[in-house]
Amino acid sequence: MSCVFCDIVAGEAPAIRVYEDDDFLAFLDIRPFSRGHTLVVPKRHSVDLTDTPPDTVAGLARIGQRIAQAARRSGLHADGNNVVINDGKAAFQTVFHIHLHVLPRRSGDKLSFAKNMVLRRDPGREESGRLLREALSELDTTP
Amino acid sequence: MSCVFCDIVAGEAPAIRVYEDDDFLAFLDIRPFSRGHTLVVPKRHSVDLTDTPPDTVAGLARIGQRIAQAARRSGLHADGNNVVINDGKAAFQTVFHIHLHVLPRRSGDKLSFAKNMVLRRDPGREESGRLLREALSELDTTP
Ligand SMILES: [Zn+2]
Ligand SMILES: [Zn+2]
Repeated sequence: MSCVFCDIVAGEAPAIRVYEDDDFLAFLDIRPFSRGHTLVVPKRHSVDLTDTPPDTVAGLARIGQRIAQAARRSGLHADGNNVVINDGKAAFQTVFHIHLHVLPRRSGDKLSFAKNMVLRRDPGREESGRLLREALSELDTTP
Repeated sequence: MSCVFCDIVAGEAPAIRVYEDDDFLAFLDIRPFSRGHTLVVPKRHSVDLTDTPPDTVAGLARIGQRIAQAARRSGLHADGNNVVINDGKAAFQTVFHIHLHVLPRRSGDKLSFAKNMVLRRDPGREESGRLLREALSELDTTP
């Protein structure tokens, strides 16, 4: 059975990558709810919170925190973030390879956020990805 | 400055407790979005993803996963869960002691979920807490 996130991990489907290590990959959501909306996935396929090893869930959270910190410091100027795992179809999970969402938020963005939940596009995706990667590498040098 | 979650940790404010260990406490949200809506907090006060140690964020995620698994197996019959950290006021954080939400979901609950986002009450809170505690202790004995 094909899995679009496994394809992205394998480099067989395109994605704007934000972070990568041996076990995890983070890339921009192709239908973002906000600028810089990032997905963190384990490279090894698992479905949801029922079958994913606890260490993997902990790793998703660690990387999600790092990206949330980067989003605040980045040129995206986030004032906060929603960090979310949708566990199961009943909870709006749509791709059945577990993933953690990081949704950078700005103060008073409620209306544009609601609009984006419908439009789900970011014309400046390449730039959003660059700003996040830049802020992540700055975090690494100033811990 | 007073903090309602520190008060709950200290036993100075009431809460229906679901899980506790040396470092973390989980209890029912007093204004639930769904039956069994649980908050997981570190016992040591920190504000959000900017100041919380990565190990603590990882611990929140591990316990959140465990509660999500319990919710599915429990008498709440969850079919899935939203697991959420709202990081900052811009992201709808309202209590500034970091917490992870576990929102048990049922297939086709969209309408009742939307209604609950307004009503935010569970007349059977004691029972919801009991069902989650029961399922968590069953998870412990059948890993
Ligand atoms: Zn996959
Ligand atoms: Zn506190």
